[in-house]
Amino acid sequence: MKEVVAGVDIGGTNTKIGFVDAEGVIHAEGRLSTPDYAFADDFVAGLDEKLKEMLAGNHDLKLIGIGIGAPNANYHKGTIELAPNLRWKGIVPLARITDRKTGLRTRITNDANAAALGEMIFGAAKEVRDFIILTLGTGLGSGIVIDGEVVYGHTGFAGELGHMTVVEGGRVCGCGRRGCLETYASATGLVRTVLHMLSDRREDSPLRELKNSEITSRRVAEAAAAGDIIAQKALDETARMIALGIANSVIFSSPEVIYLFGGLAQAGDAIFTPVRKYAAELVQPVFRDTFRVEPSGLPEAQAAILGASALIWKEVKQDYRGRAYMQDHPDQEDE
Amino acid sequence: MKEVVAGVDIGGTNTKIGFVDAEGVIHAEGRLSTPDYAFADDFVAGLDEKLKEMLAGNHDLKLIGIGIGAPNANYHKGTIELAPNLRWKGIVPLARITDRKTGLRTRITNDANAAALGEMIFGAAKEVRDFIILTLGTGLGSGIVIDGEVVYGHTGFAGELGHMTVVEGGRVCGCGRRGCLETYASATGLVRTVLHMLSDRREDSPLRELKNSEITSRRVAEAAAAGDIIAQKALDETARMIALGIANSVIFSSPEVIYLFGGLAQAGDAIFTPVRKYAAELVQPVFRDTFRVEPSGLPEAQAAILGASALIWKEVKQDYRGRAYMQDHPDQEDE
Repeated sequence: MKEVVAGVDIGGTNTKIGFVDAEGVIHAEGRLSTPDYAFADDFVAGLDEKLKEMLAGNHDLKLIGIGIGAPNANYHKGTIELAPNLRWKGIVPLARITDRKTGLRTRITNDANAAALGEMIFGAAKEVRDFIILTLGTGLGSGIVIDGEVVYGHTGFAGELGHMTVVEGGRVCGCGRRGCLETYASATGLVRTVLHMLSDRREDSPLRELKNSEITSRRVAEAAAAGDIIAQKALDETARMIALGIANSVIFSSPEVIYLFGGLAQAGDAIFTPVRKYAAELVQPVFRDTFRVEPSGLPEAQAAILGASALIWKEVKQDYRGRAYMQDHPDQEDE
Repeated sequence: MKEVVAGVDIGGTNTKIGFVDAEGVIHAEGRLSTPDYAFADDFVAGLDEKLKEMLAGNHDLKLIGIGIGAPNANYHKGTIELAPNLRWKGIVPLARITDRKTGLRTRITNDANAAALGEMIFGAAKEVRDFIILTLGTGLGSGIVIDGEVVYGHTGFAGELGHMTVVEGGRVCGCGRRGCLETYASATGLVRTVLHMLSDRREDSPLRELKNSEITSRRVAEAAAAGDIIAQKALDETARMIALGIANSVIFSSPEVIYLFGGLAQAGDAIFTPVRKYAAELVQPVFRDTFRVEPSGLPEAQAAILGASALIWKEVKQDYRGRAYMQDHPDQEDE
């Protein structure tokens, strides 16, 4: 029997499920339609059924736990709290409901913290004790690891670097304030910067031939690669704002690596080269050359499931180490 | 015999020494003139002599360790690195030199981390696992505690919140960049804000009768208390910038308390009331009402020595707990 953990990635549209072994290999996958479940109890019943169905087709697998990545998840309390993109309102004790229904150890955290755990257990950060992962998508998510542990903070919600104020009175943010990092340093931020530059500058650009709603970060990256000045300037400015966020994070926890993940990070050198250059310029001089900016080591399509499963695998691996220690030191018994 | 730790606070002008017991009572004090010692070896010889002299007058005290707070100190390496205000150039392995000379366990960290440790062991944060202390003096120093441990980071230099960029292209900072938090949110920052307001506004003010070099944060606070508009506006703006630094820190590590320490914090309600108001406004809404802004629980004059000694007391108290545990569980022997 191979032990696996169910990595569950709850999104507004889809919930993806994967059985992940200790080496990060995914042995089976499943999917639920999240909005089909009006209440969290229904969802957990659906999840339980799906897990049984997936196990029925894999008699060599033993399910040892469930790790869940979800928006607005609180690791400490095992809850999802006031998630705007889910139908479940208020504070939902999802970990407890799932644990009771399935009898399996269940942990929950938000997507970016799951990404950090995935990076630590299965990705590029296996040997790194202090790092930050930035997920550059619609917004900017972040997972912070200090001395080998994800930072959850007093509330369980720590690591919201996307809502660092970087421009007072700047762009309107979904959180109701202005000038948050993610309004500049994200795929959406890049598009907003293009729109601003189209208004501000006079160069010709193929982007002027698109409807606003057709301008995506991918199209901007393609236009930049094809030599379009507006797209190049917008990408450079976005890199500068990512770097500002990095500089303001390095002075806080002095990480060894900052990993970039998500759509924008796929642009490769076009984003990493200017981010590295600006980060070195913008950070307090004492920290220059003390950190690296690197791509995530996880494949984009599997990262969410691997990261969610890592919630459990991290605990289990610590248990293993504890058990191995007890075997080597048989005099020391548990109370 | 009462066990004490030597708390040593190295400043550019004076080095202050105090024998601190486990309850934070200071039993003897001494002082060295830091610039009298051209080399760190000489300084440590002088320190050793002073400690012996202090012990000679206190036969009931047993010295068990030395904790040092110093500028540009690296906790991991036990070094002072490139400190601009000290005569000792380059990278000085002060902890090792002191340990060898005295035979006593020696630890070193910077002033703000020492303040955090002092707050944790002897001050207002005894029961608080997640907090940040901001020391508002010439600059803005910070010590960050997450889950009961000071954050040193990969380099040992973490926690430089004074060098968070809050205004791009803003005020020139001593670090060579512009717009760092401490150029606004410190005693010096308050004075700079007054100078700016004297240029920008037209109100009469007794501060106009002073030479620039005579304007101090204390005088500004006094003028504000006496009803001067310029001083009040400057204090309010300084409080807003402190709050911005707090808001950008809360999204990072989600602390339970932010302690304010140092000259500016002495202004009491005149600073705490607006800082609390602005921090609630400026922080990401999810963190509103999740943190408190409080004064430090340590007396200003003793904080540096208490904090430095806490470097050792924290370790010793952990040892005690370990020993007590072993006494309660005699089956579990060390290897």
